[in-house]
Amino acid sequence: MNYRMILRLVCYIFRVEAVCLLPSFFISLFSGEEAAAFGQGASMALCAALSLVTCLFPLKEREIGAREGFLGVALCWVVVSLAGGLPFFFSGAIPNFIDCFFETVSGFTTTGSSILTDVEAMPKGLLYWRSFTHWLGGMGVLVFLLAVVPMGRGRNSLLHVMRAESPGPQVDKLVPTLQKSAKILYTIYICLTVVQILLLLAGGMPLFDSLTISFGTAGTGGFAIKNDSMAGYSPYLQNVCTVFMALFGINFSVFYLILLRQWKRVCRNEELWLYLGIMALATGLIAWDILPQYSGDLGVSLRHAAFQVSSIMTTTGFATTDFNLWPPFSKMILVGLMIVGACAGSTGGGIKCARVLLLGKAGRRTIKRMLRPRSVVQVHMDGQLVDDQVIQNTFAYLAFYCMIALGSMLVIAFDEYSLETSITAVLTCLNNVGPGLDAVGPMSHFSHFSWFSKLVLSFDMLLGRLEIFPLLMVFVPAAWRRS
Amino acid sequence: MNYRMILRLVCYIFRVEAVCLLPSFFISLFSGEEAAAFGQGASMALCAALSLVTCLFPLKEREIGAREGFLGVALCWVVVSLAGGLPFFFSGAIPNFIDCFFETVSGFTTTGSSILTDVEAMPKGLLYWRSFTHWLGGMGVLVFLLAVVPMGRGRNSLLHVMRAESPGPQVDKLVPTLQKSAKILYTIYICLTVVQILLLLAGGMPLFDSLTISFGTAGTGGFAIKNDSMAGYSPYLQNVCTVFMALFGINFSVFYLILLRQWKRVCRNEELWLYLGIMALATGLIAWDILPQYSGDLGVSLRHAAFQVSSIMTTTGFATTDFNLWPPFSKMILVGLMIVGACAGSTGGGIKCARVLLLGKAGRRTIKRMLRPRSVVQVHMDGQLVDDQVIQNTFAYLAFYCMIALGSMLVIAFDEYSLETSITAVLTCLNNVGPGLDAVGPMSHFSHFSWFSKLVLSFDMLLGRLEIFPLLMVFVPAAWRRS
Repeated sequence: MNYRMILRLVCYIFRVEAVCLLPSFFISLFSGEEAAAFGQGASMALCAALSLVTCLFPLKEREIGAREGFLGVALCWVVVSLAGGLPFFFSGAIPNFIDCFFETVSGFTTTGSSILTDVEAMPKGLLYWRSFTHWLGGMGVLVFLLAVVPMGRGRNSLLHVMRAESPGPQVDKLVPTLQKSAKILYTIYICLTVVQILLLLAGGMPLFDSLTISFGTAGTGGFAIKNDSMAGYSPYLQNVCTVFMALFGINFSVFYLILLRQWKRVCRNEELWLYLGIMALATGLIAWDILPQYSGDLGVSLRHAAFQVSSIMTTTGFATTDFNLWPPFSKMILVGLMIVGACAGSTGGGIKCARVLLLGKAGRRTIKRMLRPRSVVQVHMDGQLVDDQVIQNTFAYLAFYCMIALGSMLVIAFDEYSLETSITAVLTCLNNVGPGLDAVGPMSHFSHFSWFSKLVLSFDMLLGRLEIFPLLMVFVPAAWRRS
Repeated sequence: MNYRMILRLVCYIFRVEAVCLLPSFFISLFSGEEAAAFGQGASMALCAALSLVTCLFPLKEREIGAREGFLGVALCWVVVSLAGGLPFFFSGAIPNFIDCFFETVSGFTTTGSSILTDVEAMPKGLLYWRSFTHWLGGMGVLVFLLAVVPMGRGRNSLLHVMRAESPGPQVDKLVPTLQKSAKILYTIYICLTVVQILLLLAGGMPLFDSLTISFGTAGTGGFAIKNDSMAGYSPYLQNVCTVFMALFGINFSVFYLILLRQWKRVCRNEELWLYLGIMALATGLIAWDILPQYSGDLGVSLRHAAFQVSSIMTTTGFATTDFNLWPPFSKMILVGLMIVGACAGSTGGGIKCARVLLLGKAGRRTIKRMLRPRSVVQVHMDGQLVDDQVIQNTFAYLAFYCMIALGSMLVIAFDEYSLETSITAVLTCLNNVGPGLDAVGPMSHFSHFSWFSKLVLSFDMLLGRLEIFPLLMVFVPAAWRRS
């Protein structure tokens, strides 16, 4: 176990965070938000100071193995959320540190659940930082770091970090070197974000709104800067977001294939079809179900249905209407979408369409094996053989997912909110969506939960974003052993 | 594929059903319930006639393979439920046949969900039949049949039927021959039922009530013969049921070990400890949570908590109080217990404690393998090595379970009942419990659902009782192929 390497990663995260706070610090300065500027300045100074700790422990070995990958990623995510909450705390904008932590975890994990009762009262600089955490967390902080700064030596260093931080059952390799793969993905991410900002600006959205909303869309986060989320924006702006949320929920390697004009491989991507199919079906069913609520106006009901489906399935969490008031059938569809989630290799959360496909295929294999015990049946995806270990891990992921969801619901229920509240609060956090139903609906917030429930939900958000295993490793003594 | 063998099994089931209807037929006759007696008489005649179809197709081969086991069991359970609903239909007691089917599926699968709005208005003979289906379905009809009538030839015939019909991840073998194992289990089942009947009679319960309540307890079914379930009985009678429900939720092989005085092996049974531990913990938490509702009387609150926990965890479904009015925390615990369920090899439903244990252990193994990819880690249960295929099947079971639950909830939500209603209606049926929450609470019923939802819920009950795979096989073309 290379403890010093983990420390080095954590200290680098502090440094990155100090730098990333700069833009929002300047926004606060120029907007004359003194408390916010002070809070961010102090946080930057503290992060910069803490990042120097690594100098005290020079590295002996630069290899990142499987264990360093898991533990390093898990610790970095906890640390980045703790440090990221400091600006809110130091500025006094959110007086309770557990609330600051919840809000920042929700930001970095691209969940978007908020404890703020009045978003519009927040200083602009802090609102910018809040949305920027979505953008940073969306593609993963550590992978970015290691793609730019070649910290780990050895061919597999980046692979182990990608395994732990990137969503999906397995790591996609676009080009032979992982370093280059990561760089391509980040370039696509940045370009798509820029295009969205421009399209929003073209629709007359103010620059500040365009930036924050685009960060929230790109990371599939969902922090809005208005109390009614996106209900106040024009239909054009809402539709742009609908499309971009859906785009950011697609596996980024698909965009790379499109750039290379490899249309055949795009068409063969089974996950993409499942994703688009579910999205279309859900939009149709909901539009039909909510039609009476929008006085039979199919255009309006389709727009709201498409936005909400795109928002919930990609686990973004913006809202154009209070879907808490929709009929139960539509609400149940949204709950289902929360769980299924977006595509692997996107910035979205949830179980991921790829895993749902894999589970179905592996289930079918089990049935075939039961019928003919001596036959060998293999699982293929996109025409390629899936390694048995990947299937095992996916099954285990589902088992842990169910146990964690059920356990969290039980603990949250202790606050004695309705079952619908407790169930959807856990599902929305564990799947990194944002809003739930009933007392945690899209026009509500999470501030009324007890501090203990907030910690449990924060933990669920981290478990969801890191796809359970890295964070579980922290509690396994064997992972920490030196040899 | 031995189609004739499957037909033979189905026809035998008709014969068994005709015989089993006799007691309730006589009860109707002697109580002067003419319509009910006619309904049962006609059903018996029809079943007897249908059972003769098998004579037209003499058997060529008597072997029951894996496929015949799965398909035979699945078809027999559908047929037994269809035929078992005839007395209700012919007598006019339940005018709609889908309701008759739902009620009988609920009986045989030991669920206990009812579409009856006024149970007490039913003729006694039909009430007896209704409860008797619980007792028949509890231990499985086909295993009983094959243990008594050696229909299948070949050593594995009974094994394949047991695999398909007996609950739990694997078949327990108490003694070297399965035939004898089955006979021992049924003897324990009958003896425990008789003891409960005697204890209830000793507490002053009328004979008819003692019989029906004991059938419902033994099969962990839950059909009551009063509209308030068991709320009207004395605390002594309720406590007897609490204990016996808990007993019938224990793996029957534990009783055999106790009879053999193999205390060490009893103590080493990990599932038993998990089951008792969860039960004790849940009872304590609920008793504390509901204390204010029973004006601080710990005795009363403990009695109700213990009864409801025992009833829901063993998936029986009796109630002594309307737990729909309990605080959300207690309700959430009950929902959790529904899912976990009783022990494998008992008459209870749910995922089963053994599977929860297995999933936890297999999950831990996955983590260990991630940390040290080249290491070999094996899963042990009760000190014995668990076959890898059993683990794979358990994982696949969970995957199907989740998909079926979520899919059913979506379909049921189409009826536009509250989310709590739809979610718990599916969970209570899929886990063979009986009552749910909100509109399907313990003092309510399932009659208000649409016919389509009733069919979906009936299907869920069958899936739950047969533990998914046998019923799924019916829809797999490969299972039906001749070669």
